[in-house]
Amino acid sequence: MDRRTFLSGAAVVSASVALAACGEGEDQENQQTAETGTPDNPAEAPSVSRGMREWRLVTTWPKNFPGLGTGAQRLADHITTASEGRLTVKLYAAGELVPPFENFDAVREGKAQMSHAAAYYWINKHRSTPFYAAVPGGLVAQEHNAWVYHGGGQELWDELYAEFGLKAFLAGNSGTQMGGWFQKEINSIEDFQGLKMRIPGLGAEVINRLGATAVNLPGGEIMPALQSGVIDATEWVGPWNDLAFGFYKITKNYYGPGFHEPGTASELLLNKAAWDGLEPDLQAIVEDAAAATNVRMLAEFTAANNESQRVLVEEHGVELRPFPKDVFDEMLVHSDDVVRATAEEGDLARRIFESWERFRSEARARNPYAEQGYLQLRG
Amino acid sequence: MDRRTFLSGAAVVSASVALAACGEGEDQENQQTAETGTPDNPAEAPSVSRGMREWRLVTTWPKNFPGLGTGAQRLADHITTASEGRLTVKLYAAGELVPPFENFDAVREGKAQMSHAAAYYWINKHRSTPFYAAVPGGLVAQEHNAWVYHGGGQELWDELYAEFGLKAFLAGNSGTQMGGWFQKEINSIEDFQGLKMRIPGLGAEVINRLGATAVNLPGGEIMPALQSGVIDATEWVGPWNDLAFGFYKITKNYYGPGFHEPGTASELLLNKAAWDGLEPDLQAIVEDAAAATNVRMLAEFTAANNESQRVLVEEHGVELRPFPKDVFDEMLVHSDDVVRATAEEGDLARRIFESWERFRSEARARNPYAEQGYLQLRG
Repeated sequence: MDRRTFLSGAAVVSASVALAACGEGEDQENQQTAETGTPDNPAEAPSVSRGMREWRLVTTWPKNFPGLGTGAQRLADHITTASEGRLTVKLYAAGELVPPFENFDAVREGKAQMSHAAAYYWINKHRSTPFYAAVPGGLVAQEHNAWVYHGGGQELWDELYAEFGLKAFLAGNSGTQMGGWFQKEINSIEDFQGLKMRIPGLGAEVINRLGATAVNLPGGEIMPALQSGVIDATEWVGPWNDLAFGFYKITKNYYGPGFHEPGTASELLLNKAAWDGLEPDLQAIVEDAAAATNVRMLAEFTAANNESQRVLVEEHGVELRPFPKDVFDEMLVHSDDVVRATAEEGDLARRIFESWERFRSEARARNPYAEQGYLQLRG
Repeated sequence: MDRRTFLSGAAVVSASVALAACGEGEDQENQQTAETGTPDNPAEAPSVSRGMREWRLVTTWPKNFPGLGTGAQRLADHITTASEGRLTVKLYAAGELVPPFENFDAVREGKAQMSHAAAYYWINKHRSTPFYAAVPGGLVAQEHNAWVYHGGGQELWDELYAEFGLKAFLAGNSGTQMGGWFQKEINSIEDFQGLKMRIPGLGAEVINRLGATAVNLPGGEIMPALQSGVIDATEWVGPWNDLAFGFYKITKNYYGPGFHEPGTASELLLNKAAWDGLEPDLQAIVEDAAAATNVRMLAEFTAANNESQRVLVEEHGVELRPFPKDVFDEMLVHSDDVVRATAEEGDLARRIFESWERFRSEARARNPYAEQGYLQLRG
């Protein structure tokens, strides 16, 4: 890929409010009823006529935010083109149509027919949604795709979202995210004692158990907070997005991989009544566009991260290190506790955890003889 | 996935002739002209009328062969459904319309408009085609997708195939294949001396350099050859397909991962004139169906291999081992020689090798901080 495209940070600063609010969604009450209604008749509105629909795709990303925003735009464009405009998808960047973390309700209520976001944003709707984005100590992208597409994950996701009148498909992946930027080196678990780190979501719960204090900051506030000492460390995404943010100007200590987001999936969320009302040809177009976006976004992140890591190290003197093994092991122990606790939320939550845990267990046994083992030997 | 689906071997035996002929393609002369003509007017024939096309998809797989054949069928069905039959794709199993390894010429000549196969079958057409399927010591699926979609690989592929009047997209991946089944344990590189092993393609060249004798056998002949001692070892695919073949009945020594096919891609090959004649909506449908098949096939292989490995070990007492590190290192040294030699075939071959090698080099630097590093720590 053209390096200027990779490294462009134009859209990044405006991204901050939207992206960084992960985990800050309003704690609205779980509406467990399957009856969501379709107040605006979303399968049609605001269609021009039968057979010519115009659908709204709300996102949690700024317009053309590298990787996530551009992926969502590609998804919208491909559906529009492949359907010859019979299903025209108009993309709304974060905040344009609804506040960025109200997508879930907007799609339920039919204000939009589609959303592109990460499922862990909806943890306040159901404690199991992070399994469909990323959980600490969880699956990498290839494993996650295998679990969702062919390991029973999609069926459980359908069951979970049907309670809200929703339906979702995988529609992107960022790959394994980095551990973050630290003012001081991490040499032992004691170094987390009293550390103030910007990290959202379930990862925050793990960091707190290590004796650190997790802070949730919008992206735009991270740089000044790190510079002034309000925080001692921050995670963001990976080399591509982190390079654009410029964290290397403040500290050179860059740790990875992270324990907390090993392969963060994006979802295409649909109003189920609208989805059910689509003809089979349009359903096939939407389903394949989502899967195509899934594989292509991961490819873009992988290529861009490779290139950006080289730039960070060679041009900006960044010191790249893994967390010490005993530190990572401790992170994983607490991760398992935090993730396992979700199973106690009810029957469906338990079945999601058990399906996922069984899949992870088989993957663990297989990996030394598959991609992981090969990459370790090849280098 | 339903285990019965995973483990069904019904289609497997008939698969053997088709699959195992890899590397046995006829050595027809490279027709380096860009002028391939469209003798049967493939963009139209045998269409019923303008706007209603019926295209032929030839494959190198038996009908519904697990993973590969079922993936090709999904691709055909999704294009037909998404286009409401305006582009109806009829799948031909290996040998049904043309001999299985004449797909390349069949699509050039317009006997079929599409082929689903692995690009290394066309090595006799151009020495660089294996870069678009798998080469020894090469890329895993996530890396391969990144190189092709976002690392310059597709553009070079377009250039390579345009010389033949063809165009291709990624349309599947088997993941990292296994090293194979061995009558005797492999403890050092000396154990390859005089060993007769069934292995096709560039991997065969590497094995011969280790002092072994590579043998190419159709799949249906492998079992008797291994049983009677005609061969001492064989590779096939991975736990899913290998379990169905029943190699565990002959020996329990199963080595993996293999060095020779770290992430074998399937391609959707198109007659370029036919492709260029498609309206933009049908092009988008074909492109997304191919990408969707790419990600879903790898997911199916991953899930099925996990489950099948467990069955092989727990129910059939298979002993799973990696090759010793020094053996694998030696395999990689020879692999690099064999792969690098392709660069000497001409300007385009050199540019393909250099683009691929540069990508692999950056990926190697990044992997310890990404998926590979994470999986190693997580286990």
